[in-house]
Amino acid sequence: MADTKKDFQPDWYEEAPKPGSYRSIFKWGDPLGFKHPNLRLYRMMKSVFNLTDEDFKKPEKEGHEQVAVDRPSEMSSERIDAIVEIVGEENVQTDDFSRVRYSNGQTAEEAIRLRNGINGPLSDLVVHPRNKEEVGKIVAYCNKEQIPIYIYGGGSSVNLGFQPVRAGITLVMQTHMNKIIRLNEVNQTVTVQPGMLGPAYEASLNDAPKLFNAKRAYTGGHFPQSFEYSSVGGWVVTLGSGQQSSYYGDAYDIVISQEYITPVGEFVTLDYPATATGPKVNDLMKGSEGTLGILVELTMKIFRYQPENRFNFAFIFPDWDAAVDASRRVCQGEFGMPSVFRISDPEETEVGLKLYGVEGTILDKIIQLRGYKPMQRCLCIGHTEGERRFSRHVKKKIKQICKQAGGMYITGYPVNNWKHGRFRDPYLREDLQDFGITTDTLETSVTWENLHQVHQGVREYVKSRPGTICMTHASHFYPQGTNLYFIFIAKFRDINEYKSFQEGILDKIQEFGGSLSHHHGVGKMIGPRMESHIGKTQMDLLRAVKKHLDPNNIMNPGGQLGFDDSKQ
Amino acid sequence: MADTKKDFQPDWYEEAPKPGSYRSIFKWGDPLGFKHPNLRLYRMMKSVFNLTDEDFKKPEKEGHEQVAVDRPSEMSSERIDAIVEIVGEENVQTDDFSRVRYSNGQTAEEAIRLRNGINGPLSDLVVHPRNKEEVGKIVAYCNKEQIPIYIYGGGSSVNLGFQPVRAGITLVMQTHMNKIIRLNEVNQTVTVQPGMLGPAYEASLNDAPKLFNAKRAYTGGHFPQSFEYSSVGGWVVTLGSGQQSSYYGDAYDIVISQEYITPVGEFVTLDYPATATGPKVNDLMKGSEGTLGILVELTMKIFRYQPENRFNFAFIFPDWDAAVDASRRVCQGEFGMPSVFRISDPEETEVGLKLYGVEGTILDKIIQLRGYKPMQRCLCIGHTEGERRFSRHVKKKIKQICKQAGGMYITGYPVNNWKHGRFRDPYLREDLQDFGITTDTLETSVTWENLHQVHQGVREYVKSRPGTICMTHASHFYPQGTNLYFIFIAKFRDINEYKSFQEGILDKIQEFGGSLSHHHGVGKMIGPRMESHIGKTQMDLLRAVKKHLDPNNIMNPGGQLGFDDSKQ
Repeated sequence: MADTKKDFQPDWYEEAPKPGSYRSIFKWGDPLGFKHPNLRLYRMMKSVFNLTDEDFKKPEKEGHEQVAVDRPSEMSSERIDAIVEIVGEENVQTDDFSRVRYSNGQTAEEAIRLRNGINGPLSDLVVHPRNKEEVGKIVAYCNKEQIPIYIYGGGSSVNLGFQPVRAGITLVMQTHMNKIIRLNEVNQTVTVQPGMLGPAYEASLNDAPKLFNAKRAYTGGHFPQSFEYSSVGGWVVTLGSGQQSSYYGDAYDIVISQEYITPVGEFVTLDYPATATGPKVNDLMKGSEGTLGILVELTMKIFRYQPENRFNFAFIFPDWDAAVDASRRVCQGEFGMPSVFRISDPEETEVGLKLYGVEGTILDKIIQLRGYKPMQRCLCIGHTEGERRFSRHVKKKIKQICKQAGGMYITGYPVNNWKHGRFRDPYLREDLQDFGITTDTLETSVTWENLHQVHQGVREYVKSRPGTICMTHASHFYPQGTNLYFIFIAKFRDINEYKSFQEGILDKIQEFGGSLSHHHGVGKMIGPRMESHIGKTQMDLLRAVKKHLDPNNIMNPGGQLGFDDSKQ
Repeated sequence: MADTKKDFQPDWYEEAPKPGSYRSIFKWGDPLGFKHPNLRLYRMMKSVFNLTDEDFKKPEKEGHEQVAVDRPSEMSSERIDAIVEIVGEENVQTDDFSRVRYSNGQTAEEAIRLRNGINGPLSDLVVHPRNKEEVGKIVAYCNKEQIPIYIYGGGSSVNLGFQPVRAGITLVMQTHMNKIIRLNEVNQTVTVQPGMLGPAYEASLNDAPKLFNAKRAYTGGHFPQSFEYSSVGGWVVTLGSGQQSSYYGDAYDIVISQEYITPVGEFVTLDYPATATGPKVNDLMKGSEGTLGILVELTMKIFRYQPENRFNFAFIFPDWDAAVDASRRVCQGEFGMPSVFRISDPEETEVGLKLYGVEGTILDKIIQLRGYKPMQRCLCIGHTEGERRFSRHVKKKIKQICKQAGGMYITGYPVNNWKHGRFRDPYLREDLQDFGITTDTLETSVTWENLHQVHQGVREYVKSRPGTICMTHASHFYPQGTNLYFIFIAKFRDINEYKSFQEGILDKIQEFGGSLSHHHGVGKMIGPRMESHIGKTQMDLLRAVKKHLDPNNIMNPGGQLGFDDSKQ
C-alpha cells in the first residue's frame, strides 16, 4: 500500500464529453460521472495484458469528433409533416446528432464503432410523443404507410434492442411520457408512463407521503445496474431484473398490468393479482421488446420503503462449490429470501476483495490465516430486508447455513462498499477503452443442477484465450436456480475478433444448457439464436402472435427476438 | 344442544351408488364417502326454505337408474380401429356408461340433468392413452380426420370444461398417465404425468425418502377443495389455486415447465426459474384448458414437507370491513405470508361457527360477551408454515395486526375442525339435492380497492331472491388483492331458473369489476363472457394463437374460453 503514491497512473479522461461528439453518445450515464480503475486494477491490467505504463500514456479513439452523418434521412417531407402534425414540430428531430444518439445503445460493439466514427443503422426521424393518444396516431399512420417504429426508453440496451436496422421512426419515451399517473395505496400499486427513468421513479415512491399524500413511503424494488439509464417500461418489455430481485422479484413479477398500442388495436390487460381466465395476454407481452406493440402505461407493484430494516452480511467460502451449495440451501430454506445476494467465483473474488476494501485490512489477514486460499475462496455479500424481525431472522438463517457450509462471516462491511459503487461500474468502461481494453458482460439463467457445467464450460472457453480476465457471479436467486453473470476484460485486434469471441461464449452457454439471457433480454444480437433455443414449434407460435398483432412488420423489425432476419 | 336427539333427521342416503347408475357418475368423490348436513344446518334449511320434516321424508330423483344412451356413437368403425391400433383394444370404450361418465363434470347443472336421466353432450369414443407417444399419434390422426378431442383429467370441472359438445374422442389421462417421472432434489422440482391425482401426487412427495431415495420429504403445496378428484395437469391448464396458495402460490406459480402435443407440433418449454428470452410460451399455455394442445408432462416446484411447523390461528372480527382491512395489512406487511388464510363474511361466519365446533362452547360465550354480534362478526381462520421460526413469526405478526383491527384471538381450535372437513364439503351436495335443494359456488378475483363493491353487488342480487343463502369468503391472498368465493344454497323450480340465477350472479360480478374466475377456470360455461371481459383486441389475439396451434379446431372445440360459439 505504501508505494501507491509513487506509481504512475494514467491520466484518465475526466471532462464532460463535448456537446455533439461521439463520446457524448457512447459514454455511460452522467456526462460528469466517472469511475476510474484504482491502482490495483490498473496494475492487474498491465500484468494480464502485458502492458507497460507507456501503453497508458496516449489514449486512442476517444470519440471527441462531432457526429456527422453521410446518409440523409430517407423520410419524405410529406411523412415528416404528417408526424409533425401529430406531435408538434418541437418534438421531431432529423439532425445528425439526434439520429445517431437515439439509434445506439450500450453494447461494447456500438461503443467501438462510434469511437471509429461509424454510425451504424440510423433512424430517419426521432420523435418524442407527448402522450399515448399521440402514440396511437403515430402507430396508425406508420402501419398504413409501412414505416418501421423503434422505441427508445432509457437507452441502456446491451443487445441492439432498439437498433433501427430498417430505419424509419424512433420514438423516445423518456422525454415526455415519464410521469406517475396514479399511486394506489390500497392496492399497493402505481400506474406509470413507460419512459420514467429509475431514479425519478424511485424518488417519487420514496417521497409518496409528500407527493401523493400517502400514508407511507414506498419503493419500486427494482434496481438493475442500469438503474439510472433505464426506464420502467424498458424493465418490463426486456424482462429485466434488479439487484434486489431475490426479494422483490424480477420486472416480470412486479408488473401487474400493461396498456399497449398495436397496429391492430389497443388494450389494457387485467389488473387482478391472479385470475383463472385463460392464457394471460399480460404475460405474453412481457419481454416483447417492442415487437408486438408499444407499451404506453403500466401498473406496477410497490413495496414499503424501510431501509432501516436492512441487515448486511458478507462471507468468505473455501471454494465455489461451498458458496453455491450454501446459496441453494438459503433459497430452499423457506424462511424468506434475502434481497441482495451475490456470490463471486474465485477470479471475481480476488477483484472483489480489492474493490470492496477488504484487501490489506485485518479482516484480510484473518481470512488468510484461516486458510481461505486466493483463487479458490469465494466472496458472498448481501443484505436482507422487509419487516424488521423477518429481515433479522433471514440474516440469522443465512449466517447459520453459510457457516455450516464452511463460510466465514466477515461482517457487513464489504457490502457498504459494494452499495456505494453498485450503479457505477459501467463508468469504468470508457477509461479502459480509451486504451484499447474492452470490458463486456454476458449472462445466463441456470438451474442448480446445471450451474457448474455452464460455469466451467464458459470459463474454459474464455480462459483458453490468452490474456483474458473472466469474472463470474450469481446475483439473482430462486429456489430452483440462479443466474450466472460473466464479466470479461480483454484486448481485441478489431471488432470482428471481439464479436467472434462473444459469439463463442454464447455457443458455450447454449452447449452447456444455460438460457440465452437471464435479464439482458434478446434484442437483435441474440435474436438469431432464439429458434435453436426454444425450438421451431414455439418460435413459429411466437411468430404467429407477431404476425397477428403486427401484420406489416413495422414494430422493431429486423431480427429482434429472432422474428425475422437481420441482414443489415 | 339437549334436544338434538329427539329431532327428526332425514334418512340421508349412505350407500355406494349402484354400479352403472347415474348416481355413480354425479356423486362427488369416493363412492363410500359422505358428509351429511348436521342438525343445525338441517334446521337452517327448513327455516330458510320454509320446509318441514315432511319435505325430507321422500327423496327425489336420486339417480339410481342405470345409464342408458339413445344416441349411438357416431364414430365409424374405421376410425375406432385406427385408435385401437394406437392404444390397444382394452383402452378404448364405446359403452353407454363410459360415454356418459367421461362426458360429465361437476357442475350443479350436470348433476340436475343426470338426476333427470338426461345425458347431455356425449363423447363418441373414450380413450385411455398409455403414454405421450400414443397421445401424439392420436392428435396427428384426429387432426387429419378433423375429429374433436376433449381431455378428462380428474373430472372435477365446474364450468363444463371438458364437455364434448362436438362429440369426438375423450382422452382420459388419469388411467395410465399418472406417474412421477423424476424427482429432482437439487432443483427441488418433480416431473410428472398430467393425469396423476392430488392424493397420489402428494403422498409420493411426502414419501420421497423411501420412494426416490431423497434426503427429505416434500410437498406439492397445492390443495384445492377438489384435491382428491383433480389432476396435476388439470391444476395447470385451468389455473387452479390450492387452499394454501397464499404461501405456496397458485398452480400458475408452481409450474416450472410443460410439454405439449399440439396439432402443429410438440414442444417442451424452458425450465429455468427465470429468463429474459422474450414472451414465454410456458405462460401462454397455462390456463389453455385443452384448447391449444395436450399437456403430456410437466415439471412442478416442490417444497419441504414440514407439517410440524404449522401454527394455527383463528380470530373473530367485529365486522367484514375490519376483517378485510386486517387481511390486507397482513398481505402487505412483508414478514412472509400465511399458508391457509380465510375470512368469512357475516352470513358464512354464522354457519362456520356451527361447522367448526365453536357454537355452544365457552369460546362462543366469550365471543358474545365481548360484543361480537351475529350477522356482523366475521371469522378468520388459518395457519402458517415454512421454516419453524419464520412460521412462528408470521403467526405472531398476524395476531398483532388482527388485534389492532379489533379482532379477538379464539385459539387455533376451529382450524382443526376446518382441516378435518376441508375436502369434504362437496359431499354435502348430494344429500341436499336428494331433497331438491341446490348448492353451488361462483368465485372471482378482486383488488383490495374493489372488493367491497363486488361483495355488496353480488350479495344484493342473491339476497333479493327470497329464501336464498349466500355465504362468502376470501381465501387466496396477495399483496394486491384476494378472491371472493360465493356459496349459494337455494331451491329452484327447474334447471332454467337455476341457470338464469347463475348468469345473474356472473352479470353482477362483471358489473362490479370482479374477474370472471379466480381459480375455477372458464370452460364453456363462462366462455361466452370472455370477449366482454378482456376486450376484442385481446380476444382476437388469443384466437390467433388458437388458430395457429389448432388450425382445424379439434382441441376442445365448442365454446371453451370463448374461442368459438357454444350453441348447445
